[in-house]
Amino acid sequence: MLTANRFDKEHNALVILDQTFLPSEVKYISLTTVPQVHEAISKLRVRGAPAIGIAAAYGMLLGAVLASNLSFDAFLTEVANNKSYLDSSRPTAVNLSWATSEMLAACNDCQSIKQAISSMMATAYQIHEDDKRNNKIISEYGLSLLKEGMGILTHCNAGPIATSIYGTGLGPILLGQERGYNFKAYCDETRPLLQGARLTTLELTEAGVDTTLICDNMAATLMAEGKIHACLVGCDRVALNGDTANKIGTMNVAILAKHFNIPFYVLGPTSTIDVSLKSGAQIPIELRDGNEITQMWYKSSMAPTACKTYNPAFDVTPNNLITAIITEHGIITPPFYDNIKEIMGK
Amino acid sequence: MLTANRFDKEHNALVILDQTFLPSEVKYISLTTVPQVHEAISKLRVRGAPAIGIAAAYGMLLGAVLASNLSFDAFLTEVANNKSYLDSSRPTAVNLSWATSEMLAACNDCQSIKQAISSMMATAYQIHEDDKRNNKIISEYGLSLLKEGMGILTHCNAGPIATSIYGTGLGPILLGQERGYNFKAYCDETRPLLQGARLTTLELTEAGVDTTLICDNMAATLMAEGKIHACLVGCDRVALNGDTANKIGTMNVAILAKHFNIPFYVLGPTSTIDVSLKSGAQIPIELRDGNEITQMWYKSSMAPTACKTYNPAFDVTPNNLITAIITEHGIITPPFYDNIKEIMGK
Repeated sequence: MLTANRFDKEHNALVILDQTFLPSEVKYISLTTVPQVHEAISKLRVRGAPAIGIAAAYGMLLGAVLASNLSFDAFLTEVANNKSYLDSSRPTAVNLSWATSEMLAACNDCQSIKQAISSMMATAYQIHEDDKRNNKIISEYGLSLLKEGMGILTHCNAGPIATSIYGTGLGPILLGQERGYNFKAYCDETRPLLQGARLTTLELTEAGVDTTLICDNMAATLMAEGKIHACLVGCDRVALNGDTANKIGTMNVAILAKHFNIPFYVLGPTSTIDVSLKSGAQIPIELRDGNEITQMWYKSSMAPTACKTYNPAFDVTPNNLITAIITEHGIITPPFYDNIKEIMGK
Repeated sequence: MLTANRFDKEHNALVILDQTFLPSEVKYISLTTVPQVHEAISKLRVRGAPAIGIAAAYGMLLGAVLASNLSFDAFLTEVANNKSYLDSSRPTAVNLSWATSEMLAACNDCQSIKQAISSMMATAYQIHEDDKRNNKIISEYGLSLLKEGMGILTHCNAGPIATSIYGTGLGPILLGQERGYNFKAYCDETRPLLQGARLTTLELTEAGVDTTLICDNMAATLMAEGKIHACLVGCDRVALNGDTANKIGTMNVAILAKHFNIPFYVLGPTSTIDVSLKSGAQIPIELRDGNEITQMWYKSSMAPTACKTYNPAFDVTPNNLITAIITEHGIITPPFYDNIKEIMGK
């Protein structure tokens, strides 16, 4: 079983699976400084909204340990600076700043560095454990909406290595596999970074799921052929009205699903819901280097140099294209604004 | 100016631009046997429905010249065999079998091999010249539907090297560029064979068009941002009811365009219309090797070996998603069945 994040207390290190080497190489690397954690998140060595939340929490913890020779005031300043710095590693997924906020809050009411580090360690482990628990619950809720033998379309990767265990979008498929549901999974390769091809197919085939890889532009054909009965995706940030930021191409899938009258489910923990945002229009979208489209992975450049590129890493799926949002607190259906507020206790 | 096909009469050779080397290398190769032409078409060294029609016509011609030492009866049998053989190189584009049928018919009423070859040569050149004329007319009709400064989405490559000059889908953009329309072209990279990235952006940037490359899954975001005002695509086979087979992902674009209320135009010569088919359900769809998705172009494989693939080379866009079909005989609007029959004189 591949594991996105593991904290090595003895060496004060965050051990991550470097996902940029998959599927050809399983390589774990040990991060021992906050800038290394920042680099690993921004380069997608660790990725997936819940997993980067967990990584950032451990990054805050190891940064705090490194600052333990400072005065208490300087320590607290360092912890706050680490939060801002780690938050800047990727802008879209809210789990990142949610987790670092939890870690910062763990220092509240502490009287000493030792006490603060102890509290932060408990918080980081709790965030990690909560994610495991949440994913199991999300997977159960998701599975309750599916039937044996269904064809399920996935986009990007929202599996165990994007989270902690089971995953969000992949959770119901993996749980269903354990229970003999015999799903047929179809995975969008998910250009440009190919998380679907490199990561999702790896997790599903290792679990024994009947898995077929397609290019992103083939999903409409599968739907027209009647092979897709549900779409399951994760999420990076959900606004109060249900608008959902997720990996680029997610809105594309949602529009196709609407056209073919196929349920489109978003799965994620409530830590992905940003209650400060009324709509998706306010979600910051990360623009990444065009080389990811034209050169990365390839033997030679696939486009002439005179050509411009546009490489948004996420899109925002409008709430009216979403059948339900599945969280650890239950299945949220429209009207999303009211029902999300209720579930979030706002 | 790159040229897909040129017949070298002196050496009885079809000279093609080997498009598999683009954009990094401009390489022309000389084909002197019918199996070489078959291989070049099936491997997409020459591609684009009109261009493979022209290549097949010249392939029929060079095959006839090679058979000129046979008896007349054996010659005619050889010509017929060459047609069947070349038709098998790719199943979906109807221009291929249309062109070889024209070449076979050129032998009708001929009394000698010399006469037949002369007639076939005239027919092959005529097919090539007609394509140039048709593309200019199609480009004019297409341009009449566009306005200065529009953002235009393209899929795959339907430019000069997919045809003979101007192209079908790209024709209005290139003609508009000559006339100062200042279009902003957005090109789907078009996985898995990347014709949009490798070929369309090359043709557009060389013509000076403002060109931006995107991954196929980013089109919905561009549309949501209001950057796309029309979609232009070519076609490989159009049924009598207007259902259109074109490069995989075309239906995806058409569904998005419908969702965002953006015009979706199909452009192609009437030789692409298959009057024998009442609907797109009857169009044969070529399935290609999954290695094109997982391994081609890459430094290493992008998916685990246990993963299956599905790699249809084309999809069929239902007529109700098409705003108009633009041919050399005019702009066809719904109801397509009646209007196509009328334009085809059926």
